[in-house]
Amino acid sequence: MTFEILHTSKISKARVGKIITSHGVIETPNFVAVGTNGTIKALDSQMVTNMGLQLLFCNTYHLLLQPGVAVVEKAGGLHGFMKRSLPIITDSGGFQVFSLAFGSVAEELKSAGKKKSEGMVLKIDEEGVLFRSYRDGSKIFLTPESSVEAQKKLGADIIIPLDELPPYHASLENLRDSFARTHRWEERSFRAHQKEPKGQQIWGVIHGGVEKDLRKKSCEILTALAFDGYAVGGSVGKSKEEMVQMLSFTLPHLPKEKPRHLLGIGDLVSVQKIVPLGIDTFDSSYPTKAARHGLLLTKMGSLKILKKENESSLQPIDPTCHCWTCQHYHRSYLHHLFKAKELVAFTLATIHNLHYMVELMQEMRQKILWDQI
Amino acid sequence: MTFEILHTSKISKARVGKIITSHGVIETPNFVAVGTNGTIKALDSQMVTNMGLQLLFCNTYHLLLQPGVAVVEKAGGLHGFMKRSLPIITDSGGFQVFSLAFGSVAEELKSAGKKKSEGMVLKIDEEGVLFRSYRDGSKIFLTPESSVEAQKKLGADIIIPLDELPPYHASLENLRDSFARTHRWEERSFRAHQKEPKGQQIWGVIHGGVEKDLRKKSCEILTALAFDGYAVGGSVGKSKEEMVQMLSFTLPHLPKEKPRHLLGIGDLVSVQKIVPLGIDTFDSSYPTKAARHGLLLTKMGSLKILKKENESSLQPIDPTCHCWTCQHYHRSYLHHLFKAKELVAFTLATIHNLHYMVELMQEMRQKILWDQI
Repeated sequence: MTFEILHTSKISKARVGKIITSHGVIETPNFVAVGTNGTIKALDSQMVTNMGLQLLFCNTYHLLLQPGVAVVEKAGGLHGFMKRSLPIITDSGGFQVFSLAFGSVAEELKSAGKKKSEGMVLKIDEEGVLFRSYRDGSKIFLTPESSVEAQKKLGADIIIPLDELPPYHASLENLRDSFARTHRWEERSFRAHQKEPKGQQIWGVIHGGVEKDLRKKSCEILTALAFDGYAVGGSVGKSKEEMVQMLSFTLPHLPKEKPRHLLGIGDLVSVQKIVPLGIDTFDSSYPTKAARHGLLLTKMGSLKILKKENESSLQPIDPTCHCWTCQHYHRSYLHHLFKAKELVAFTLATIHNLHYMVELMQEMRQKILWDQI
Repeated sequence: MTFEILHTSKISKARVGKIITSHGVIETPNFVAVGTNGTIKALDSQMVTNMGLQLLFCNTYHLLLQPGVAVVEKAGGLHGFMKRSLPIITDSGGFQVFSLAFGSVAEELKSAGKKKSEGMVLKIDEEGVLFRSYRDGSKIFLTPESSVEAQKKLGADIIIPLDELPPYHASLENLRDSFARTHRWEERSFRAHQKEPKGQQIWGVIHGGVEKDLRKKSCEILTALAFDGYAVGGSVGKSKEEMVQMLSFTLPHLPKEKPRHLLGIGDLVSVQKIVPLGIDTFDSSYPTKAARHGLLLTKMGSLKILKKENESSLQPIDPTCHCWTCQHYHRSYLHHLFKAKELVAFTLATIHNLHYMVELMQEMRQKILWDQI
């Protein structure tokens, strides 16, 4: 029993539940913060734990290259390495390898398909993907099996199978090839995991972009395997409307009794849209990145701390907020710290934005329990 | 009564005492951390307070330019602005203005006296120094009176009078002119302060470089005024031996019953040398700068955390250390955070090094009480 639904809303498909892992419970729906290199940028692990953030997303690709899986394993996995007692989810490493090879979607659109850093990915074939470390130039061969093995050594509570991110401008034929291979890779990942589950979960990644037939097929293939949960990956479309359409179509093809994650989405507008569709968790670097740019989230909307109007304001970011930053500092000081490019500005802003997300999700769970969402 | 000597060593001139300010007591001898822009880099004010660091040094020059004195004053001075409850000392701003004009001593030696950024200081005359803000190009006229006024508005517990930093390659004639003017400026600063002391202290700055007759004369001039303490400024020589010689000569010319500060020195070798000479406080960015370069201070010597040997070490920086960093994290993780250039590396390393200084000074005070220093 790794997921329990406590309540499903009477007015939407939103549900309140809890995911049970070896490192404790994740109340859902919930925001998952991104700690790429085994830390949330500008915060230490204890601060993150104290703030009630229940699930952290770390990137296997980055950890493979620095410090390497062996170092983390020796420290007892990511929990022992970064001294985190709460749950951790890792990705497969595939997304970053392919992103680096093909560039992001936005870059792709600009460059009309020209590859940005062709040298990084040396070979993609049925077995896996061979790429070069940008850190030391060494060659790394990532296969479904090696990715799962790495995530097992990292000690993730939730593992993501290796998938392929096709270039945005790929031909339909290439897309269908990639789609088929991705599902073969996911099945191999699942089988590799099943050999020694070690109390870890593995969540399948639904692909198919904005093509309904492909999304449906992806659900069929992956729900035939006993994944512990499902993540929606790949392209979610060019607009929020496309995303909502795709999710509205896709989610009913997934078993209700398993948690559903949305990969890489977490801006505030999207959060309001995806939770009523039945998304249980979603990871995003938006709140932490926004914080480092001085964009602070509040119930009254976003606050740009660098604006002149904050220069002399002795109000906290949000007078109703209970975070460390709002309890101790006013906008005037934070404005100054950002202007003076002081590192602690990033720390204080990140604390605030993450606290905002924790409280937002608490409120959303409460509203679902009251059938208001 | 702003200074009390509790014990003077039987084997040296070291003494244990306490400086009493409006924001509490500073036990001496003590290290003074540098928080240039109104924060110690990578730490927030509450962390600094919790770590027992009793006196913080802020730079008036930087605060004049960003956020400006009016903003800080509106927040209730630096204490209200940065939410620090413990004592703060500020400098006059003069040192940075002249450093920027003439470059550092090291740069001077290399460039054989050629000025580095001539445009910054527009005019120096008897009245004061006119310089241009590197932030917005505005002209700022710093006089003894305006510097004291700024420091009063900043709410510093200890004020430093405006002095002139002569270029290292100045002719003897220019040096003597500068020396005379510096003392006229200090007297004007003192008079300006005396008009409205506001519970703040002002410490005179002894000049004269490594010239004994000038140091003696400086002591004579400044001890004729009722400064609350004395700081040794200007060039302290090219080596630690020259520094020790200069201090051994100079300090006996200062009244025993007033605190003695050494400006800008705080490396570990110097600390062991200056305390037995009777220095009560000294400010230095060495421990915090070293931290940001991954140089960690321990009782067994300095540790370079980026060294390969720390990659897999599950030991804390120092097993006997009680700081937050050593209580929670091992070298392997810290090594990784530095390698991955994660901001929290600076935070954790700074916490450790400042804690080291706090404990070192506690131990030194104890040893003086036992007549072991």
